[in-house]
Amino acid sequence: MTDVATGAVPLARVLRGGIVESVHLGHVVVLAPDGEVRLALGEPDVTVLARSSLKPLQAVGMLRHGLRVDDRALALACASHNAEPEHVAGVRALLADAGLTERDLDNTPDWPLDPDAAFAWRAAGHDRAPVTQNCSGKHAAMLATCVAAGWPTAGYRGEDHPLQRALRAAVAELTGVAVERTTIDGCGAPLFSTTLVGLARAFARLARAPHDEGHAGTPEARVAAAMAAHPWLVAGAGRDATRFMQAVPGLVAKDGADGVYAAGLPDGGAVALKVLDGSARPRAAVLAAALVAAGVDRGAVGPVGATPVLGHGEPVGSVEPAF
Amino acid sequence: MTDVATGAVPLARVLRGGIVESVHLGHVVVLAPDGEVRLALGEPDVTVLARSSLKPLQAVGMLRHGLRVDDRALALACASHNAEPEHVAGVRALLADAGLTERDLDNTPDWPLDPDAAFAWRAAGHDRAPVTQNCSGKHAAMLATCVAAGWPTAGYRGEDHPLQRALRAAVAELTGVAVERTTIDGCGAPLFSTTLVGLARAFARLARAPHDEGHAGTPEARVAAAMAAHPWLVAGAGRDATRFMQAVPGLVAKDGADGVYAAGLPDGGAVALKVLDGSARPRAAVLAAALVAAGVDRGAVGPVGATPVLGHGEPVGSVEPAF
Repeated sequence: MTDVATGAVPLARVLRGGIVESVHLGHVVVLAPDGEVRLALGEPDVTVLARSSLKPLQAVGMLRHGLRVDDRALALACASHNAEPEHVAGVRALLADAGLTERDLDNTPDWPLDPDAAFAWRAAGHDRAPVTQNCSGKHAAMLATCVAAGWPTAGYRGEDHPLQRALRAAVAELTGVAVERTTIDGCGAPLFSTTLVGLARAFARLARAPHDEGHAGTPEARVAAAMAAHPWLVAGAGRDATRFMQAVPGLVAKDGADGVYAAGLPDGGAVALKVLDGSARPRAAVLAAALVAAGVDRGAVGPVGATPVLGHGEPVGSVEPAF
Repeated sequence: MTDVATGAVPLARVLRGGIVESVHLGHVVVLAPDGEVRLALGEPDVTVLARSSLKPLQAVGMLRHGLRVDDRALALACASHNAEPEHVAGVRALLADAGLTERDLDNTPDWPLDPDAAFAWRAAGHDRAPVTQNCSGKHAAMLATCVAAGWPTAGYRGEDHPLQRALRAAVAELTGVAVERTTIDGCGAPLFSTTLVGLARAFARLARAPHDEGHAGTPEARVAAAMAAHPWLVAGAGRDATRFMQAVPGLVAKDGADGVYAAGLPDGGAVALKVLDGSARPRAAVLAAALVAAGVDRGAVGPVGATPVLGHGEPVGSVEPAF
């Protein structure tokens, strides 16, 4: 394992009135379509807990073990959704199609991520709930996979449950990196360690799959196509993961807690980044800059990456990539 | 000016399941009662935008120019309050005592910081409002100072308004550092640059004042006594600034946006810290460790600094100070 702080470099500066108020360090790796490292800031081999950026990889593992869902449900399996009403309805439908209900979910109860959705949920008299927690699509798909594979749904979050062993194997295979450590994610699911460059490799593989001859219908191709076709289901209103995928056809992008972002391009290029301090603030600006380094048109992703710093509600500065 | 990134060192590590998930860099300075630097991590002379940690200094400036308020209103002038009902009522009373109303406030409208207060405010049909923005006590006190000094209340936020010139002079005098740059804070008020060690010096001066012979009733002593006596008004339910002051008699502690914290002790010791990345996450843990270095009992502040990392709602790690 290479400690996450190893070789971290400045990724973005936060400017207020021309003064550097804060600085975010971290690591970025950009892969060329041939898999070579095109750009590395910091250390591509650091160990990262990729959090929700692992969801598309876990979804590949679920498909490999019999999960049968349409593209919308598959996008929700990969989502850190806002719990807007359509997200919640989609998760309930995913469960119902497997003969389950939200009482089978064992993820951590939470409010919807989206502030308006959270207000409406609470105003309707509801408490924090598993179905409104942003990972509920993943958990619903995990349960549906258990049903399809003939595994018990009870205890599906356990590190030694056959489902989790299978997903761990999928993450290792797709990243090309052995899972050295397993811990527990915020939602309660097992969380597998990987490396930043391994994460980028996995996203390159996913995003290219729908466009590679002979790969149509593979789990990798299905996950990538579902995310690219339903970017709103993967996150929601105003979210930059949604906006990046809307801006770049075929892009497969997934944010993860504690400063992680990964994105694959249809040509097999890819980006992965880890903000050392875990902040979400610089992620969009840094991802946009990294995608430009990967060959994406700046005009397409620049507006998504733009992150103003506000004074009295008006821009008085911005988060500026350091590269 | 010394760029804020200069010489930054690790202040805290975020551990999940024994794995280092994230690391926060930054600067900490601890002053001994005689004003000497007892501990310096990073560079004490970096330029910082101390944000709301400047409020107690600004309040001293207001008292020097005629602001007449009781200790509760003074604590609110220094507050980044939660906008719980008692905070909002206190701000309205502060305005009313000066013959003003919340329509005179020109700070940025916002929801209450406290989630329950925010829900209740919105459920009552209100929109984001200046009075519920966390700086409304400061703005109300600024307006009341204008009334007392015979300055126009209109345009009170302007950098060249006599109020703001006076507060800038107070900040420079209390920190012992010339204000090199002025920008705009989130709330719309002018924001004056200073240095980390200057901020610590100012808090040392404030916190010692009530206990120094011949200083009773000075603006410095009044601000310190008001904050120490009314820690709940300075922040609110669950907030660590409130809890630190409740835990340590005579402590004067104030958090500021983008990773700032400053605290003064009755003996004249003081602490100031800046998290380079601007995150609030490690602030309490780092402040607790720094207060211990300043001579405070670990048993008093340790529980306030304890910052668990959660998996499925249970601690699976913690934010650990690096010193």
